[in-house]
Amino acid sequence: MTRPYVVTNVTIIDAVRMISKGFVKVKDKKIVAVGEGEPQAEYGWERIDGQKKILMPGLVNTHGHTPMTLLRGISDDLPLERWLNEKIWPAEAALDDESAAAGTALAIVEMIRSGTTCFADMYHLNREGAAALTEESGMKASLSRGMIAFGSKKEQQEKLKTAIDYAKSCQSSASGRLRGAVFPHAPYTCPLEFLRETKAKAEEAALPLQIHIAETRKEVKEHETKHGLPPVAHLLEEGILTKGSLAVHAVHINHSELTGLKDNGVHVSHNPQSNLKLGSGIAPLPQLLNHHIPVSLGTDSAASNNTLDVFDEMRQAAMVHKGLEEEANATDAQTILEMATVNGANALGFSNAGFIEEGYDADFIFINSDQAHMIPRINHGTLVYSATGRDVTDVFVEGKPLMRDGRLLTVDEEKIRHEAMAASEKLADDH
Amino acid sequence: MTRPYVVTNVTIIDAVRMISKGFVKVKDKKIVAVGEGEPQAEYGWERIDGQKKILMPGLVNTHGHTPMTLLRGISDDLPLERWLNEKIWPAEAALDDESAAAGTALAIVEMIRSGTTCFADMYHLNREGAAALTEESGMKASLSRGMIAFGSKKEQQEKLKTAIDYAKSCQSSASGRLRGAVFPHAPYTCPLEFLRETKAKAEEAALPLQIHIAETRKEVKEHETKHGLPPVAHLLEEGILTKGSLAVHAVHINHSELTGLKDNGVHVSHNPQSNLKLGSGIAPLPQLLNHHIPVSLGTDSAASNNTLDVFDEMRQAAMVHKGLEEEANATDAQTILEMATVNGANALGFSNAGFIEEGYDADFIFINSDQAHMIPRINHGTLVYSATGRDVTDVFVEGKPLMRDGRLLTVDEEKIRHEAMAASEKLADDH
Repeated sequence: MTRPYVVTNVTIIDAVRMISKGFVKVKDKKIVAVGEGEPQAEYGWERIDGQKKILMPGLVNTHGHTPMTLLRGISDDLPLERWLNEKIWPAEAALDDESAAAGTALAIVEMIRSGTTCFADMYHLNREGAAALTEESGMKASLSRGMIAFGSKKEQQEKLKTAIDYAKSCQSSASGRLRGAVFPHAPYTCPLEFLRETKAKAEEAALPLQIHIAETRKEVKEHETKHGLPPVAHLLEEGILTKGSLAVHAVHINHSELTGLKDNGVHVSHNPQSNLKLGSGIAPLPQLLNHHIPVSLGTDSAASNNTLDVFDEMRQAAMVHKGLEEEANATDAQTILEMATVNGANALGFSNAGFIEEGYDADFIFINSDQAHMIPRINHGTLVYSATGRDVTDVFVEGKPLMRDGRLLTVDEEKIRHEAMAASEKLADDH
Repeated sequence: MTRPYVVTNVTIIDAVRMISKGFVKVKDKKIVAVGEGEPQAEYGWERIDGQKKILMPGLVNTHGHTPMTLLRGISDDLPLERWLNEKIWPAEAALDDESAAAGTALAIVEMIRSGTTCFADMYHLNREGAAALTEESGMKASLSRGMIAFGSKKEQQEKLKTAIDYAKSCQSSASGRLRGAVFPHAPYTCPLEFLRETKAKAEEAALPLQIHIAETRKEVKEHETKHGLPPVAHLLEEGILTKGSLAVHAVHINHSELTGLKDNGVHVSHNPQSNLKLGSGIAPLPQLLNHHIPVSLGTDSAASNNTLDVFDEMRQAAMVHKGLEEEANATDAQTILEMATVNGANALGFSNAGFIEEGYDADFIFINSDQAHMIPRINHGTLVYSATGRDVTDVFVEGKPLMRDGRLLTVDEEKIRHEAMAASEKLADDH
């Protein structure tokens, strides 16, 4: 689809507006016009009929571990320690590059199907493969080689070098659709000295830092005991969390940490379903938003969710605080949609995506709104309170179709599902 | 499909078991055999291939207002008082029997599509029509004519008589698939004297009582001020909530009320999404379950949800308490599935549904498990944490197919969607 095209007769919704019947023109990877009613005819342009569809920005998933898609459903309803010790770590130990690749491919299928156009992926296996597969799939991604730094100084140095090199290679991808990030796993799995060094190297290479932080109450307590400060405050003070860094989870944070995150321009990846399912807690989303901290949404891995559907994250993010605070307006659909689209794109370094607006990358999806659970009226709430990933029919990234009418165009779905099943059967702990 | 049939090669999951590859035999509206592996051949039986499907009990939705499906999305993110005063009540005032019928029909389409086989429906309009349409659709339901008793004594008497007559007529439906219930709206909309009389008449007619109760903190506080007891304790003491009654919401209840509900055999309809979305609060589900109170799940109306998908209720019911209590095992998938199936059936007076077991009514659905977001492993968690109503392909009630391969067989979906859109456009407040 190298010809320019125009989507007509379509309902257009992004975080800031809604057009009940309009058009979107796409040329050279970009949205070149958006309007109400009928577009002017242009010679040689293809037409796509968007009737009974909603056209919205592609969703952005700012936290995940794609190889772990293979561990979906391996362990539900277990306390975190048992979940890790008895199920996840033994299963992860059995993963290798090949099975990790099968998990990443499965994740990519699921993400495209559910309307995600851009994602973050941190893991330690099959990194080159993940980059190649993402390029091939047509998606956008911020990729990182995760680092747990329990080893010797020498091992730490090697890990860091490999991680930096990998992130650099992603930054200079052929397609321009990849970004690289530096991801030390967490303050409790990386010594402070290692975090400092990681930050220095990341800055040197102009790479953003991402880190799991303040996920559980236990982590925060132990960090305070050891360092005299809770982890977010500590890493802010250390200059490890700075402008453009991504703090993942940030469930247990205090008021001064909220101010610190805001003042330092740190992004937060809010992972409501994973935080609930693992019993980690509930991040203070309304407070994060009141502090104007740029919050985006992440699914975390399918092992703690159990899907990669950002629509589910939107609904959960919107729902839980209304009940908790006993205020139906504790959250609103437009803000939630902003988190799942433009905030996500910004958090991952894609400053030109997330709106349906002239000059933005043509990253958008279609929702089939001609279904019983969507009618009789369409608005921002439809996307947050009624839609799921299973309502997505078409996905475009930089104008290129990755899915049309429910059919994946850039990856071999059947083969990928088959390989995921086979890889899962080989995992020793899956019995 | 009056011939007996057998579903083969299917994964069978209900609240108490899972068979990875088995069969279910259906004859004369009943499940007559369930087993592992291949069934013995029987002459004249039809075969349905269940490969790559999960066969599970049909879901039961124990609370809703089907005509309000027409109000889906009319108002999101507004505080309860403004939601009611500015949006819902004016829109409801504009509803009539005809538009209510359009809403009920739309609800039935959505419910069948999302795997619900049995539902509760309380409203004050188009009751005969709702009964007729339910019969026609092939679904099971507990129907009631809701009563708000602000009027004169005479008006109250008339309302009560009409409601009792309606419930009786449902109890004696031709198909046997309907039940009737008596539904005084709430303690704050019905004087105590009216509730007493309603209960007396309901007992006389052997009809169960359902009531919205303890939905908001405000309601509970005002009830205590007026009557010296919180509403659940009060209605237990009054003998208005008794064995087989259905307390809807029960969000704000204290410890002695938990014991009272248990001791008196009262069912609870838990409506997690509606309670969250309206800012009502979060019902103490783990405590209800610890007290062995029979809890089932309800969507409430689409105006406060915004879908009628019981899969969404399952996931929400399972998720929120894990995070709140910071315990990943605060809930578990099997218990949640029990709530959505057998507990729901019992709550609505269908004692012979909710399990995939010999002798039970053949009320079951198929889930397409051959999808990226469901693999690589299937278990109870798949139904609670991965599946949505959009994954349902087939629905059977008493052995009769209501949906096959995504096609509705008993209702005219296109016509119903069209009529819902038209009815919605006529609502004055929809602008």
